[in-house]
Amino acid sequence: MSKNLTKRSEDYSKWYNELVIKADLAENSAVRGCMVIKPYGFSIWEKMQAELDRKFKETGHQNAYFPLMIPKSFFSKEASHVEGFAKECAVVTHYRLKNDEDGKGIVIDPEAKLEEELIIRPTSETIIWDTFRKWIQSYRDLPLLINQWANVVRWEMRTRLFLRTAEFLWQEGHTAHATREEAVEETEKILDIYANFVEHYMAIPVVKGLKTESERFAGALDTYCIEALMQDGKALQAGTSHFLGQNFAKAFDVKFAAKDGKLDYVWATSWGVSTRLMGALIMTHSDDNGLVIPPNLAPDQVVIVPIYRSDEQFNSVSEKANEIMTDLRARGIRVKFDDRDTHKPGWKFNEYELKGVPVRLAIGPRDVENNTIELARRDTLEKEMIPGSEIVEKVVSLMDEIQKNLYKKALDFRTKNTTEVDSYDEFKEVLEDKGGFILAHWDGTVETENRIKNETKATIRCIPLEGEKEEGTCMVTGKPSVRKVLFARAY
Amino acid sequence: MSKNLTKRSEDYSKWYNELVIKADLAENSAVRGCMVIKPYGFSIWEKMQAELDRKFKETGHQNAYFPLMIPKSFFSKEASHVEGFAKECAVVTHYRLKNDEDGKGIVIDPEAKLEEELIIRPTSETIIWDTFRKWIQSYRDLPLLINQWANVVRWEMRTRLFLRTAEFLWQEGHTAHATREEAVEETEKILDIYANFVEHYMAIPVVKGLKTESERFAGALDTYCIEALMQDGKALQAGTSHFLGQNFAKAFDVKFAAKDGKLDYVWATSWGVSTRLMGALIMTHSDDNGLVIPPNLAPDQVVIVPIYRSDEQFNSVSEKANEIMTDLRARGIRVKFDDRDTHKPGWKFNEYELKGVPVRLAIGPRDVENNTIELARRDTLEKEMIPGSEIVEKVVSLMDEIQKNLYKKALDFRTKNTTEVDSYDEFKEVLEDKGGFILAHWDGTVETENRIKNETKATIRCIPLEGEKEEGTCMVTGKPSVRKVLFARAY
Repeated sequence: MSKNLTKRSEDYSKWYNELVIKADLAENSAVRGCMVIKPYGFSIWEKMQAELDRKFKETGHQNAYFPLMIPKSFFSKEASHVEGFAKECAVVTHYRLKNDEDGKGIVIDPEAKLEEELIIRPTSETIIWDTFRKWIQSYRDLPLLINQWANVVRWEMRTRLFLRTAEFLWQEGHTAHATREEAVEETEKILDIYANFVEHYMAIPVVKGLKTESERFAGALDTYCIEALMQDGKALQAGTSHFLGQNFAKAFDVKFAAKDGKLDYVWATSWGVSTRLMGALIMTHSDDNGLVIPPNLAPDQVVIVPIYRSDEQFNSVSEKANEIMTDLRARGIRVKFDDRDTHKPGWKFNEYELKGVPVRLAIGPRDVENNTIELARRDTLEKEMIPGSEIVEKVVSLMDEIQKNLYKKALDFRTKNTTEVDSYDEFKEVLEDKGGFILAHWDGTVETENRIKNETKATIRCIPLEGEKEEGTCMVTGKPSVRKVLFARAY
Repeated sequence: MSKNLTKRSEDYSKWYNELVIKADLAENSAVRGCMVIKPYGFSIWEKMQAELDRKFKETGHQNAYFPLMIPKSFFSKEASHVEGFAKECAVVTHYRLKNDEDGKGIVIDPEAKLEEELIIRPTSETIIWDTFRKWIQSYRDLPLLINQWANVVRWEMRTRLFLRTAEFLWQEGHTAHATREEAVEETEKILDIYANFVEHYMAIPVVKGLKTESERFAGALDTYCIEALMQDGKALQAGTSHFLGQNFAKAFDVKFAAKDGKLDYVWATSWGVSTRLMGALIMTHSDDNGLVIPPNLAPDQVVIVPIYRSDEQFNSVSEKANEIMTDLRARGIRVKFDDRDTHKPGWKFNEYELKGVPVRLAIGPRDVENNTIELARRDTLEKEMIPGSEIVEKVVSLMDEIQKNLYKKALDFRTKNTTEVDSYDEFKEVLEDKGGFILAHWDGTVETENRIKNETKATIRCIPLEGEKEEGTCMVTGKPSVRKVLFARAY
């Protein structure tokens, strides 16, 4: 298989699009802005799902399922939510088609017009809080910790596979609490779960922070986020966790009786990560040879490619390969033995490089004789001859090593590409020449934030929760600032 | 907790609706015909999903994801498919809302009308075969074995929780093959997977068979099905597997080059089971006390309820309970220790009966003293005192025993309620007085089938694949018949 992949240095965006398609992750469908997630891409998403689902359940959350279609009027109930979400969306207006009287296929039946239009959920706060009203009466019903794995639709004009699609897959958590403190604690706990997952499972370092008011979720009092840095110096928001205060409880009239019998509105959070994480995965680790997948997420962690000319050679090589495969599987490693006779070894090497399989083993007749195996690492592209007696231990320890190496590489990249600046000129210079994360003082006003955005296309990614809190003056207005905030151009 | 459940003998349909809601499985939402699947119900569905997913993957199928919205014109491409599916469906006509100029909330933006309407998938053959065209060129790309877990929408007028809802969750398999034989083999293999799952995992006996022409999936050459018998004597179709021939390949122009280079259309199958299985589960095993769940599907297989008056008693009882819980978990049993002090033991007993937990253990101070535990089986409602030294083994073996007992009970019920008849009068009599499955000779024509349906509301559930093939004459027309077929009134 010839890869013919555009180099990242030539055209990063083209490289990304080609890689997503050539590595069999996803492709565009006949429906504008909607993608098909191909089996290989979906199997990586399934690994993410499984691990996140485990973490949610471990912390007491339960899955449930709410309707895809939401009555239009629900969106108007929470004032700021409607502005943010009920605009670019898919609207269901009819419930029947009929044969065209002129014989031109099928047409809408005008008699089957809905009294009230239904909106395909762009997010489910409204329908879920309409349901929570029935589930919550007393403090005994709280906390209510619900998660939903679902598809959502937001009508995006410019779409890109995984990064921005009209329909995408995600999980959305929705929780209800008796006190403000407990809801804030939940919001932060989820942020930690997300950060932990993205850093340790996906090997992507993130900055945890708070969004500024103008970047907040529509209807939230606070939006926490994790921000990652892509190889082209642009930021990507990898997950958000919202403290919703009592906004949705008030909009949907959800009250609970406290222990002392007093009625009060319930406190809420919501939080989500989506198939966008696939984009983050690709743009953090992959290279000009194709995908690079951390072992934790790799559908196949190891592939064994046999090298042979005759049937006899194939048999002896296969025997050795099966032996190694059995031993590796016993150690919990996901191994594939690619014994297809329809493709040459070189073609297979290219394919598995393109698909990012962490470790490739090649075994030929010589290796059987000498009891050696050729091992190639996808992350470093290094090859090594390993004695047969050591191969299992070597591969097992490599899983951990590659996982850590990918994280370290990404962290080093981010460190090199995070710049502290003190003046607006320096800010613009760094943004143009180097890109990446920029830490700078800001006066805390929407006006200054908007000015910077309009003049440079950089946005405040977050007000970091961690790191130094040195006071200073805003790089644009000179007004006082309590700490530097994180800027970048972003996906 | 007081159950207040209508008795099955009084009003089966009311009993069902009450049970679904009181056992926290699902409820109606604000959206007509769309349900909310509550956490307890969803956790049972997740168990079904996990087991089916494992079986699909074990047999070489891969998951993928295709768009929710399908262009209207796609449905017209396969002639019989459009008749069956493009009628009662949710139609997306616009992609934007705007603020009403009169300040009355939000309204459709007439400028944002789609050129071509999009249909929320009622099933995905069309969009998937449009995609398969790009994935299949040569025999090397076959077989292509794809599955999708998804939500679908069919605009049903009369809906019932789980049994018939406008939106439901399901899996839909779509496969492509080089030969007719291979596609038929796949269709049958999946039917076996379904039957196996429903019988051994859900403890529901099924009859495997072929649908008659008029009951076939729109676009299929053959529809295989599994049919189960509910406690009220009505049948429920629990899963279908369709042999689609080359219909969709022709409609979407999907050809492949065979080894000899010759181009031919691809052969197809599709198959699915849905959240309707939850309805089958409930209506097969449950009783007037509530839900009965087979151990394989029970979110909690065992619940331990402590009985105490003082803190001291609670402590010693808890110690014992935790010990047993640890031992049971080590044996792979899902155990919950309900130590809530907000509810009395009697209330808890009722709750777990209602929710169908297979085994309940109760431990009081006397039991700690005597080293005994009270064990109650949900399936038989029997109680027994078990010595502490035997409790773990007893519970472990009960899991298997209860699973088998539920299957046997359901099978006995079906056997008792399956009647062979030789005349149409007898047929009508049995249908009225006894209900259940009726085996009778039929002449194989649509006319006779329709006449029976119109006159008795009974349909041919299937032409059984197994069982005796005794020739005879049609009970209605007296024309020759090759074997008796299975009739029933159905959900």
